[in-house]
Amino acid sequence: MVKVNVMKEMTGIIEEKTIEPEQFCEYIGNTIKVHGSIYKIRKMSGFAFVLLRTKRDIIQCVYGEEFSSFSLSEIVEECCVIITADVVKEERSKTGVELRLVDVEVLSRPVMESPIVINNKKVDTSIENLLNYRPITLRNEKERAIFKIQEGLCQAFRTYLTMQRFTEIHTPKIVYAGAEGGANIFQLDYFGKKAYLAQSPQFYKQMMVGVYERVFEIAPVFRAEKHDTSRHINEYTSVDFEMGYIQSFEDIMQMETGLIQYAMRYLEDEYHYELELLKVKLPKVSEIPTIRFMEAKELIANEYHREMKDYEDFEPEEEKLLCEAIKKKTGSEFIFVTHYPTKKRPFYAFEDPEDQEVTLSFDLLFRGLEVTTGGQRIHNYDMQVAKMKERGMTVESFESYLMMHKYGMPPHGGLGLGLERFTSKLLLQDNVRLSTLFPRDINRVTP
Amino acid sequence: MVKVNVMKEMTGIIEEKTIEPEQFCEYIGNTIKVHGSIYKIRKMSGFAFVLLRTKRDIIQCVYGEEFSSFSLSEIVEECCVIITADVVKEERSKTGVELRLVDVEVLSRPVMESPIVINNKKVDTSIENLLNYRPITLRNEKERAIFKIQEGLCQAFRTYLTMQRFTEIHTPKIVYAGAEGGANIFQLDYFGKKAYLAQSPQFYKQMMVGVYERVFEIAPVFRAEKHDTSRHINEYTSVDFEMGYIQSFEDIMQMETGLIQYAMRYLEDEYHYELELLKVKLPKVSEIPTIRFMEAKELIANEYHREMKDYEDFEPEEEKLLCEAIKKKTGSEFIFVTHYPTKKRPFYAFEDPEDQEVTLSFDLLFRGLEVTTGGQRIHNYDMQVAKMKERGMTVESFESYLMMHKYGMPPHGGLGLGLERFTSKLLLQDNVRLSTLFPRDINRVTP
Repeated sequence: MVKVNVMKEMTGIIEEKTIEPEQFCEYIGNTIKVHGSIYKIRKMSGFAFVLLRTKRDIIQCVYGEEFSSFSLSEIVEECCVIITADVVKEERSKTGVELRLVDVEVLSRPVMESPIVINNKKVDTSIENLLNYRPITLRNEKERAIFKIQEGLCQAFRTYLTMQRFTEIHTPKIVYAGAEGGANIFQLDYFGKKAYLAQSPQFYKQMMVGVYERVFEIAPVFRAEKHDTSRHINEYTSVDFEMGYIQSFEDIMQMETGLIQYAMRYLEDEYHYELELLKVKLPKVSEIPTIRFMEAKELIANEYHREMKDYEDFEPEEEKLLCEAIKKKTGSEFIFVTHYPTKKRPFYAFEDPEDQEVTLSFDLLFRGLEVTTGGQRIHNYDMQVAKMKERGMTVESFESYLMMHKYGMPPHGGLGLGLERFTSKLLLQDNVRLSTLFPRDINRVTP
Repeated sequence: MVKVNVMKEMTGIIEEKTIEPEQFCEYIGNTIKVHGSIYKIRKMSGFAFVLLRTKRDIIQCVYGEEFSSFSLSEIVEECCVIITADVVKEERSKTGVELRLVDVEVLSRPVMESPIVINNKKVDTSIENLLNYRPITLRNEKERAIFKIQEGLCQAFRTYLTMQRFTEIHTPKIVYAGAEGGANIFQLDYFGKKAYLAQSPQFYKQMMVGVYERVFEIAPVFRAEKHDTSRHINEYTSVDFEMGYIQSFEDIMQMETGLIQYAMRYLEDEYHYELELLKVKLPKVSEIPTIRFMEAKELIANEYHREMKDYEDFEPEEEKLLCEAIKKKTGSEFIFVTHYPTKKRPFYAFEDPEDQEVTLSFDLLFRGLEVTTGGQRIHNYDMQVAKMKERGMTVESFESYLMMHKYGMPPHGGLGLGLERFTSKLLLQDNVRLSTLFPRDINRVTP
């Protein structure tokens, strides 16, 4: 019998030789090792401040000729190192300690200096450069804080929906038909057949309501929109949920209100460092007012003496003005606009039984921008087929979508929230790209 | 001044009129309302069992002419209903109670009966039908349990990685170049330019190691492989992590071992119902053995008297035999195979300083199938450029990828785990499609 030459058994334990910032206080008076990148070297006379970038923190270390056993010239910014340092109590520091550099082991060195200065308070360059040099500019303290906050939003959304008994699903992004209609869809050669990139998980999340009643997904969606604006990107992260057995489409808005309330509390508790760094003032969300679409149109027209042109949609300027007016009148930076015209909503939107010109749908506007679209969906098979025929759609092409209606569906609805737009508005940015890790737009597919 | 006609303020609270199964015990002796779908009606003489499908449970209700105020003919299977029922203590029931049906409100009715019986213990049909009727067949108790377990895996993976200080990221799926090389990539017309669907988040997660040191992403990836086998699908959910400042490539395997250990405990704690239902026996993962690729090849050749043909890769049959042999010898259903030949690994794989013919890489095999590929990556700019040139690659095309190496990167590595494959092997299935919600393969892009 052959012997199994097992090299080593993995046990799940990594022997760490370095200390994390959270543990520094336990080591006062001791010498420790810490790993990280040299973020900034600030030379003074006879000593220097060396800032070390770790997973989440920027740690201030002190280099001094009398206690450091190496030459400062051995390190440059963006070197990856393991430092050996004495831990000294220092109450003014965030970690509660000061690290006095004793020695340094250089693990790697940059080949050259970055053409863009990344270690100032802010990366001072054009948005083009900021995005072209994304792998480097994200190393800036404030840049990376943006995406920690985005992580916090995701975690909060998932936790809240899980507590509300939603099931997490993974639906396909290569699809046989677009859910949102229109030409804004990327086409793909799928082994000689036509296929598309999903504009939203709409069809699938509805199907899954028939299975789990409440489902959610946080995943990429793709829109082939040719707009080149500060609020459009062609691939974004959509926070989608869909829920069955609703008593009214207001249940969906209540759920979203609870979701956002929870997320704001969560950021406050878990992302205090990044909120401080970016000077974020979280919006108040104890309640969110609602207004009907037509009343919102009238309000804007009257309040700002504007002529109403488009009766079926908002102009971007109108969204801004509406938010301004609502904030002035109610204090809320969020507003649910409800009852959008049937003409402008997709074929699965549920019409208001009291007025078929409008749907039981809504958008959520936040600081001047639409961040969510949602509503009740048609759950009755005959009603859905009739509406599709009315719109001249080929019912047969949607056979697998209509299967759920045919074999029984509860009243249901849901929404999609754009994660990057939401983050961007939360941080008071003027361009959604600033909250997109690697944005895709009509001119950009790199890095 | 115009009055803001606020309809209603959303407060985040939904007034629920129905009770969830977890609360049934609090209502013994009372009459409650519960919503759900009629899963099965089992007529007996003078009474009937009515099974109600709720978010996660199948609730047994009793219909009896003496206490039910409606006719059983008013309901059919897959009706969506709100039942009114008396709660009676019943210790043999999972919920601890029996529900005696008093009344029923029908919210919706199926148009016709499903052509496939979904409410038996098992959906007894071909895999083709199972997948063609996915929106309906997933309503089966056991079918939907599969994806609850998958949800549990995801939750566990995320929680563990977050505890280990990984940052969650969202990287683009529309990309300018493939990370894995080869022709297995979907091409896209991106506003008149060529773009591709990401085969993995490889480039991006490496870049983000320079930012956060440890990152992870659970997201779709796309492989244009023409294989039509039980283990290939063309879109799958990849659990990716990447970590910096590793001391050895073994750190990555240790991290994965810890991850899987945590996930198994988590399923045991939180998904007991589904594990029971599907009769899942969780594998033991207190340690996972490792074996070098060439030694594994020899072991299989000797143990099973097979001729060794391919010296650079495993045949699928060899993966099965290796797992069988390892289980026999060590009891482990997992095996890390390490040191894969350099020729067969991508251009970013780190070569073993002691033998450049092999890389510091690994696969994790589980019950006969590769479920993870991982390894250490090249972090040195000159080394990476040299290797790309050696392979005849156009270095200029990878400018934005190489930016991180140029401006400094720590030693790092990571892995990708196929969520569907892992689920499928955990459940002892013989086809990965059975653990894929809506599979995409060379012949299937619907539903």
